[in-house]
Amino acid sequence: MASTPPQALFAASTPKAPPTEMANAIRALAMDAVQAANSGHPGAPMGMAEIAVALWGRHLRHNPADTAWADRDRFVLSNGHGSMLLYSLLHLSGYELSMDELRNFRQLHSKTAGHPEAGITPGVETTTGPLGQGLTNAVGMALAEKLLAAEFNRPGHTVVDHRTYVFLGDGCLMEGISHEASALAGAWKLGKLIAFYDDNGISIDGKVAPWFVDDTPKRFEAYGWQVIGPIDGHDVSAVDAAITQAKRSAETPTLIVCKTSIGKGSPNRAGTAKAHGEALGAEEIALTRAAINWHHAPFVIPAEVYAAWDAKAAGAERQAAWEAAFASYKAAHPELAVAFERRMAGTLPENFAQVAVDAAIDAHTKAETMATRKASQVALEAFTAALPELLGGSADLTGSNLTNTKSTPPLRFDAAGAVVKDEQGRGGRHINYGVREFGMAAVMNGIALHGGLIPYGGTFLTFSDYSRNAIRMAALMKQRVIHVFTHDSIGLGEDGPTHQSVEHAASLRLIPNLDVWRPADTAETTVAWTRALLNTSKPTALLLSRQNLPYLPKAGLDEISRGAYVLAEPSEVGLKKKAQAVILASGSEAHLALHAQAELAKLGIAVRVVSVPSTTTFDRQDSAYKSSVLPAGVPRIAVEAGVTDGWWKYGCAAVVGLDTYGESAPAPALFKHFGFTAQNVADTVRKVLGA
Amino acid sequence: MASTPPQALFAASTPKAPPTEMANAIRALAMDAVQAANSGHPGAPMGMAEIAVALWGRHLRHNPADTAWADRDRFVLSNGHGSMLLYSLLHLSGYELSMDELRNFRQLHSKTAGHPEAGITPGVETTTGPLGQGLTNAVGMALAEKLLAAEFNRPGHTVVDHRTYVFLGDGCLMEGISHEASALAGAWKLGKLIAFYDDNGISIDGKVAPWFVDDTPKRFEAYGWQVIGPIDGHDVSAVDAAITQAKRSAETPTLIVCKTSIGKGSPNRAGTAKAHGEALGAEEIALTRAAINWHHAPFVIPAEVYAAWDAKAAGAERQAAWEAAFASYKAAHPELAVAFERRMAGTLPENFAQVAVDAAIDAHTKAETMATRKASQVALEAFTAALPELLGGSADLTGSNLTNTKSTPPLRFDAAGAVVKDEQGRGGRHINYGVREFGMAAVMNGIALHGGLIPYGGTFLTFSDYSRNAIRMAALMKQRVIHVFTHDSIGLGEDGPTHQSVEHAASLRLIPNLDVWRPADTAETTVAWTRALLNTSKPTALLLSRQNLPYLPKAGLDEISRGAYVLAEPSEVGLKKKAQAVILASGSEAHLALHAQAELAKLGIAVRVVSVPSTTTFDRQDSAYKSSVLPAGVPRIAVEAGVTDGWWKYGCAAVVGLDTYGESAPAPALFKHFGFTAQNVADTVRKVLGA
Repeated sequence: MASTPPQALFAASTPKAPPTEMANAIRALAMDAVQAANSGHPGAPMGMAEIAVALWGRHLRHNPADTAWADRDRFVLSNGHGSMLLYSLLHLSGYELSMDELRNFRQLHSKTAGHPEAGITPGVETTTGPLGQGLTNAVGMALAEKLLAAEFNRPGHTVVDHRTYVFLGDGCLMEGISHEASALAGAWKLGKLIAFYDDNGISIDGKVAPWFVDDTPKRFEAYGWQVIGPIDGHDVSAVDAAITQAKRSAETPTLIVCKTSIGKGSPNRAGTAKAHGEALGAEEIALTRAAINWHHAPFVIPAEVYAAWDAKAAGAERQAAWEAAFASYKAAHPELAVAFERRMAGTLPENFAQVAVDAAIDAHTKAETMATRKASQVALEAFTAALPELLGGSADLTGSNLTNTKSTPPLRFDAAGAVVKDEQGRGGRHINYGVREFGMAAVMNGIALHGGLIPYGGTFLTFSDYSRNAIRMAALMKQRVIHVFTHDSIGLGEDGPTHQSVEHAASLRLIPNLDVWRPADTAETTVAWTRALLNTSKPTALLLSRQNLPYLPKAGLDEISRGAYVLAEPSEVGLKKKAQAVILASGSEAHLALHAQAELAKLGIAVRVVSVPSTTTFDRQDSAYKSSVLPAGVPRIAVEAGVTDGWWKYGCAAVVGLDTYGESAPAPALFKHFGFTAQNVADTVRKVLGA
Repeated sequence: MASTPPQALFAASTPKAPPTEMANAIRALAMDAVQAANSGHPGAPMGMAEIAVALWGRHLRHNPADTAWADRDRFVLSNGHGSMLLYSLLHLSGYELSMDELRNFRQLHSKTAGHPEAGITPGVETTTGPLGQGLTNAVGMALAEKLLAAEFNRPGHTVVDHRTYVFLGDGCLMEGISHEASALAGAWKLGKLIAFYDDNGISIDGKVAPWFVDDTPKRFEAYGWQVIGPIDGHDVSAVDAAITQAKRSAETPTLIVCKTSIGKGSPNRAGTAKAHGEALGAEEIALTRAAINWHHAPFVIPAEVYAAWDAKAAGAERQAAWEAAFASYKAAHPELAVAFERRMAGTLPENFAQVAVDAAIDAHTKAETMATRKASQVALEAFTAALPELLGGSADLTGSNLTNTKSTPPLRFDAAGAVVKDEQGRGGRHINYGVREFGMAAVMNGIALHGGLIPYGGTFLTFSDYSRNAIRMAALMKQRVIHVFTHDSIGLGEDGPTHQSVEHAASLRLIPNLDVWRPADTAETTVAWTRALLNTSKPTALLLSRQNLPYLPKAGLDEISRGAYVLAEPSEVGLKKKAQAVILASGSEAHLALHAQAELAKLGIAVRVVSVPSTTTFDRQDSAYKSSVLPAGVPRIAVEAGVTDGWWKYGCAAVVGLDTYGESAPAPALFKHFGFTAQNVADTVRKVLGA
């Protein structure tokens, strides 16, 4: 798919096309690519073309040649279905995205997927499509910028100083997560966040008036935002002026309300839902070409238009200036500069392995009976002390999730929007996200995408339902985001079935590229945290108990790291024969399995107990290891206080689980009521063995 | 758990306690019950006690003796953790909830679960706890009232005329779903919805100021609500006056902002997060008793307080008056009255079975190749014509979900808030929910709980993630809510992995008491709809294809209804021997299994194909039927374009599935790319058989 790079098409002396032509180039590329694919969304790119000219042509600080430049402005297309807008901008301004890629819009293995995907297309900062999340990612990016600026900038040395821009539509604003995100942006006084609302009055079902009557400017003022407009979104100068005004804000995020016509330029479809999500058709495209006075063939862009859009020279210059500034910073503050580079690269500190081993040894030495949520906090004490990039938080359950540590005081902002610092000049590192689980998860995605920080956040496991799609997006985007889900299963007791996550462990394990850990004790919890931090290209969910769990006899750390391991052979309960059955158990049921093993030993039945803190990790092990843990021909019985579906893949003969909702009662009563007793597990094993 | 009913404790002549005492009775019961359980949330009941006195003592139209009275006001405690407030009110006003139940707060099998549960406790209208959803349920209830009033009331006969009241706290207002719900309530002009905001400035993490800076009155004005206050939430007269004012609104929902002190009455904990979610302790309870001048033992309520709260006589009187009015309505409009009674009872019309059979026969006769989303619309044409209670909708994807029919024009309201009707006097029956998936799902729960309507709503399957917890709540509450999830799996093609629901079928099947159907053709789709409508005590998710699927040779309707059935024996591809293997397939992969069967037949390999439109339904069948479909000893291979975990429970030797994310490309290219071809399925069978 190599093709002539755009820069070869014009000389430095080529005259530059006017803004109208720049905008029409986007219109043409969008309608032609959607037509070629016979699939896609021309409406938003055509409607937002002038807004894009104003932002990308006049304000955006970026360098097409280096998509990893730390101090670039971040741009998010929250209305991700308008992907051709972004692909057009990336191509025209000089990113590594050829015209052939645009011709291959939405085809297998192209870099121009139906919705923008981070990691696939150079210059795409986040994967968008599920509405509302792009805005929320942008809030996370803007927060990351603010925190890193507060941490790393020094008098005379401003090395972190960029803005986050986000395009969004009516759909994003209807979604609930837009409320969570915008409220947080207001509370955090993210003055460098600038959002453009494509206020075209149309969504897929038609003119939005019957179902979307919000006074959006008033709503955003209620969040503490600056609202500019409504302005004419097809007037480049008006948008340009609005951006200039927005950039003056230090303390409040800005919403620029741009009145636009969806599908602008199409004589028969502009301003209608028909323009939103289907190809215009050859006839209407011809009419549109005539109407906008664009007489070039599909995928042909005149040199003047390329010249007007080209951002390479300016970008290289900007980045070079920044590199020079950074060099001078490095000379003045070498340790800070090295730390900044390490953290933006996502590399853990050199002593990480030692910190992790020490934490595990500490857990092993103390061998404490402890809730795994508490064990998580103990592990976090060590990790947050060693890793300044760890940025914690909780969706209003800090004291329950135990996500805070001595190293992570609460993050606060002063009236002027600055990070409040302690006497040593350190800002807070634990975020009170409020009761906003989905918002928290998508903000964390934005923080991880920005780089420089590793976000983790807590809520009850049952509320992983609220944040589920953002967890999925982190997995799809391969981002290191860590979810601390406490109050696992029926062990939370009296709060009852609304709060008892019986199907959530199994359900999270289904999300591709998400690691799920349900540790059984302090050592497994420490290892789970270690693996989560080492998971540079995937998110991790830690499922932690409310209730105390005993410390278990332990194999080596390496074996725990493999996700499942032999916890106890028959010999440990005095039997010299080979195991007749294997009990697999996770989390709060692992110690139950040991009790069942002991019960069975009294009857002369030899059982091996396998602890399975992470099925997702175990499933990646080689077959030799797998069969060493689960020997062929030995019947298997799984025990987990949750739905049973996921365990049959291990060839189990029986699963002691819970395929109904829980009840409201003290946890010990519930475990007994639902059959999570050593006796019932032992009976199940006997039934399987016919013994 | 029988105990003396409260009404026996006082005579008609007993003087009535003043409002202060009424409020303090709630405080005492809440703190004592939480103390007895050593678990629970005293803060909200103690802080909202006076609001409850004003509403329950002076305005709420209800009859404690009949929790099913159709025209009762609905009351929702959206801040469900304050369950002891509701239990106290139900007990004190005369519901079938004894003091022994209050003593047994949060114990196994009590009627006083940790969070209020509909169906467990008489008088609890909806299960709450997951924040924001109670408010959204209330919006659904208020909408149902408005629609039924428009449909059934006649001049001189007002048989549907009640209000919906909802208590909510800061947590509900931080949740994103509160945005979706409140925007819909404004758009729908739900004048009879009255919400009380317990504005105490505290959430679990402490004083909310750093993370919750919304100007909430301004926000709700932006949604088109009437906002009253802030008023003093501890001044019964002020709350009373606000309710009177709110009840005058015909067109706008009302938010009454009540400034309160959480845990009011507790000298050391009031106004602090400490009051929220833990027992006060014996010492603080003693101090509170002294401070509020409450000198009765735990769980002892003086007769004067019972007398003041008692709502039985007034309730019986109100209901009797309504019954008389309904009798007169029935005399004037017998058919309407009978229809109203039938619908409020949740019974389907007598001709339902015939309609369902006709629809299935029609599908079978036509034997059309069709997308199952389209087949769903065809089935809906028949069902919506026959069932006036069917109330459709879509989260801004009507033309994609195909949830609308000729019988269900769009629901619209005029400027005065009245339902717009056609010339025959019929209002709309299809709701444009906007891009609000979670809101739609929780509104549907409220509609179902209200009764009189059967809600169904559509979105893309991938966005079931957004609504997941509301789907779960419908299942937990045993409500007949039908989710139309289209654009199943990779078959949607170019929109790419953000929109491709590879793990969603498996994940929805894990939710207890949810039926999931993934039909393969028009007949299976019709049966799926039939079963969904017959599922009076569970929700159903219909997973439907975007792409066309061929009509398959068919067993009888009864067999399809069992969730899995023999679609094709080896004899149908010309082999006279017994099946050597069984291929299980669902939805878009069923026809693929038939092609694989034919390929294998060429090699002399005899295979049975089992279509599995609903694993959840099949799993409930008796073992005789199960083993008739899946005979013992015959190897099984499953095929589904999704994650494999769920299929191993059928003892499969192999699963042809997809444990990674999809890609953006045309659907046929994707099916080939990911190995969903007859050849690959056949090869997998051969590998299993070693043939």
